[in-house]
Amino acid sequence: MRHPPIGPEDLRAGGGLLDRRIFLAGGLAVGALSSSAGAEPLAVAPWMTTPGSPFTSYGAPSRFEDKVVRVWTNPPNAPGTGAARTPLHQLNGMITPNGLHFERSHSGIPDIDPDAHRLVIHGLVKRPLVFTLEALARYPMESRIAFIECGGNSGQLYQKDPAQLNCQAMHGLVSCAEWTGVKLSTLLDEAGVDPAAKWILAEGADAASMSRSVPLAKAMDDALIALYQNGERIRPSNGYPARLLVPGYEGNMQVKWLRRIKLTEGPMMTKDETSKYTILLPDGKSLQFVFPMEAKSVITQPSPGLTMKEPGLYEISGLAWSGYGKITKVEVSADGAKTWAPAALQEPVLSMALTRFRIPWRWDGGPAVLQSRATDETGYLQPTRAELMARRGGKTIYHFNAISSWGVTELGEVKHVYA
Amino acid sequence: MRHPPIGPEDLRAGGGLLDRRIFLAGGLAVGALSSSAGAEPLAVAPWMTTPGSPFTSYGAPSRFEDKVVRVWTNPPNAPGTGAARTPLHQLNGMITPNGLHFERSHSGIPDIDPDAHRLVIHGLVKRPLVFTLEALARYPMESRIAFIECGGNSGQLYQKDPAQLNCQAMHGLVSCAEWTGVKLSTLLDEAGVDPAAKWILAEGADAASMSRSVPLAKAMDDALIALYQNGERIRPSNGYPARLLVPGYEGNMQVKWLRRIKLTEGPMMTKDETSKYTILLPDGKSLQFVFPMEAKSVITQPSPGLTMKEPGLYEISGLAWSGYGKITKVEVSADGAKTWAPAALQEPVLSMALTRFRIPWRWDGGPAVLQSRATDETGYLQPTRAELMARRGGKTIYHFNAISSWGVTELGEVKHVYA
Repeated sequence: MRHPPIGPEDLRAGGGLLDRRIFLAGGLAVGALSSSAGAEPLAVAPWMTTPGSPFTSYGAPSRFEDKVVRVWTNPPNAPGTGAARTPLHQLNGMITPNGLHFERSHSGIPDIDPDAHRLVIHGLVKRPLVFTLEALARYPMESRIAFIECGGNSGQLYQKDPAQLNCQAMHGLVSCAEWTGVKLSTLLDEAGVDPAAKWILAEGADAASMSRSVPLAKAMDDALIALYQNGERIRPSNGYPARLLVPGYEGNMQVKWLRRIKLTEGPMMTKDETSKYTILLPDGKSLQFVFPMEAKSVITQPSPGLTMKEPGLYEISGLAWSGYGKITKVEVSADGAKTWAPAALQEPVLSMALTRFRIPWRWDGGPAVLQSRATDETGYLQPTRAELMARRGGKTIYHFNAISSWGVTELGEVKHVYA
Repeated sequence: MRHPPIGPEDLRAGGGLLDRRIFLAGGLAVGALSSSAGAEPLAVAPWMTTPGSPFTSYGAPSRFEDKVVRVWTNPPNAPGTGAARTPLHQLNGMITPNGLHFERSHSGIPDIDPDAHRLVIHGLVKRPLVFTLEALARYPMESRIAFIECGGNSGQLYQKDPAQLNCQAMHGLVSCAEWTGVKLSTLLDEAGVDPAAKWILAEGADAASMSRSVPLAKAMDDALIALYQNGERIRPSNGYPARLLVPGYEGNMQVKWLRRIKLTEGPMMTKDETSKYTILLPDGKSLQFVFPMEAKSVITQPSPGLTMKEPGLYEISGLAWSGYGKITKVEVSADGAKTWAPAALQEPVLSMALTRFRIPWRWDGGPAVLQSRATDETGYLQPTRAELMARRGGKTIYHFNAISSWGVTELGEVKHVYA
C-alpha cells in the first residue's frame, strides 16, 4: 500500500512536521530511503562464509561503534576532576548503557574494596549504625528507572553566543538507568530518627569527600541506597559499591561511594553546596538549595554535527525529563517557534525518568530551526532561553533548562543557534 | 522506632514468609544485619587519601566484580557454537546490562561492517526492497523493554534427577533489555504485502544462516527491527547491526544479524524449526511452532551456590515473565508448596518483560524448600514440575517452564531439588 503524496491534511505544524500515521501507513519513503535495486539476488557477505568469533565472558560494542564514547573535560593537573559526557546524539531509547553513563568526579574514581567498605548512619539518631555490603544485601530492595542530571549540564547555554558544540558536549551530563537498592527510610527507621533531625548529610568515600545536605523529608520519601545499575553492581565511575539516589534532584546530591549519612538539624553548608552548585543571580545574590532539576527537553536527532545528506523524511527524536514528576507533553517546532506540534511520548512514561519523544518531519531542503519544549505533570512549561535569561542572567552555569535551538542550513548542516 | 518481635500476625505463609511492612517499618534486623559497634569514629579508608583514577571513554565494572560474568558451553571444535548464560543470581532489577545479556550462537559471532550490511524484504511483496542502515535510521523508531528467552532455557530440569548447577547454569538463557528500532510492519507496508503471504522467513547473516519462520500476523503486530539495546547500538553478540524482535516468542526467532525477511505462503521448515526447537513428546510426535514462552518464574536470591551464613531475615527475590503478556501475580512458598504468599511485583510491570518479585523471609535455621509460581494476565498459572512432566515427558529440552525448587539445608546451603 503506497501512501498518496503529502497533502495539507498530513501537516501538524509548519516547516514540515507530519502526522505520525504518515510513516506508519507506509510508502512515503519511495525512492528516498529504500530501494528495489539490488534487492535480488541476495549477496553473500564475507562474514557468512566463515565461522564467527567465540563467546566472551563480558561483552563489548562492535569495533565499528568505537566513536560512540564519553568525552570529558578536566583541568590540566587533575585528570580525575571534571565530567565525562554521554553521547546522547548517538543513542536511542531511554536507558543509558552503563559504559556510557555520564560521570562527574571531584577527585577521581576511588578503587573501593567492598569487603572493607562501610556505610554509617549517625548524628541525630537513637543509635548509630554501621552496615557492611553483605548486610545491605539482605534488606528489601526496590528498583526505579531514574534520570540523573548534573546541576551544571547545559551550562554553556548561558553564554552570550551559542556554543558551537554538539549535543553530547552541551547536554551530555544527563543519563538514565534502572537503579536497585535499599530504601534509605528503611535504614533510618532502624537507626531511629531523633525528632530534632531535619536534614541529612551524605558523604562520599572519594578523596574529595564530596558531600551534600539533603532535607530529611526527601530522604524518608523516595531516597535509595543504590547498589545496582541496570541490573549489575554499580560501576566505580558511578559510585561503587553504593550511591545515594534522590530521584529528580541535581546530580551531585546523588552522592557516589556513599560512606555516611549524618542526621542534622540544619544543612551543613559544605563546599559542594556553597562555593559550587549555587545559582548566582544578576543582583549578586545566589539561589541555594535548588534541588529538583526543572522540566527540560532536547532534540538528540538531528542535532549539531549530524548532517542530513538530502531533503526528505526524517524522524525528529529527543529526550525530556523533569525532577518534579512525569513528562505530560513534548511539543516540537520546525519553524523557530512559530508553530508547534505534539510529539509521541514513548511508553512507559515514568516519573523522574528520561522520556523519549519522536515526531516525523519532512525536510524540504531549506533553512529550518528545530526546537522542543516539555511540559511536566505540575503544568510547568519549559521556558524559552529569553525567559530564563531574564530571570537568571548570565553569571551562573547551573540549572539551565531552557529550550535549545538547532538551526538547519541548506546544506543539511545542523548548528546550535539562539532563536 | 523499633519493631516488636515477629508475631503470628506478621506471617504471610509457612516457613517464615513475612509481610512486607515488617522490614519497611524498621527494626527487625536488630543485631543481625546492622551494628552500632564501630560506627564512630569513622575510619578514613585508604582510597580517601589519594586522588582516584581518571575518566574512561567506555566504562567497566569494578575489578572486585570480576566473577560476575557469562559462562558458556560449546562443543569441542566449535568455539562459537553454543550458549553463554546471564548470571541471574548476581543481578538485581529487571534490566540485563548489555555485557551480560545471554547469547546463543550457531556458528559464532560475525564481524559485520554496517556500511556493507543490507536488509532485504522480498518474496510475496509488490516490490522487493533493500535497506541500508543509514536508511533504517530515518524511519520512525519505537522502544520496548522485552525479555528474550532461549527455547532451550532450563532444559536440564527435564532430567530425571535435579541437576546440581546454579541458577545461571540452569536458567541463565533469559535476559531483558530496552530494544529500539523500526516496526517491521512499517517496512512491510512499504514493500506492499501480497495477499497470498501468510508467513515470513527471517534469516541471519551469520555463517549458520540461522533462519526461522514467523507468522505474518505477528510480524505485522509488534515485531521490531531492533537497532539499539539499552540505548546503544546492539552488540555483535546480540545481532549487530540489526536483529528481529518478536516479543514473547522463543529466543531463536529473534533472529540476530538480520539480513532478509522473505514473505511466504507457508513456513519454510528450516533446520532451526524442524531438527531443533521442536518439542518431542512421549508418544514420539513433536510439537512444532510453539512460539510464545509460557509464564515462568525463578527465585534468583537465594539460589544454589549462594550459602546463607546464619539464620535471620533475608529478602527472597526473583524474576517472572510470560510470552503471553503481563505477569499479574507471583506467589512464593518456603515450605515446599504447602502454603503460598504473594510477593511484591516491582513496578512498572510491562507486557513481555522480566518482572522482579520480592518478599521478606525469616529463615529459622532449619531445612526449607523455596519455590515461586507466576500467573500471567491470561490467568495461566505456572505448572508444577510433575504437571509439566506428565504432559511433556522427558524426551525434550525445550520450553521448560515449571516451578523450580531450592532446598535449604541446616548449614544454609541452597541446592536444586525436585519437590
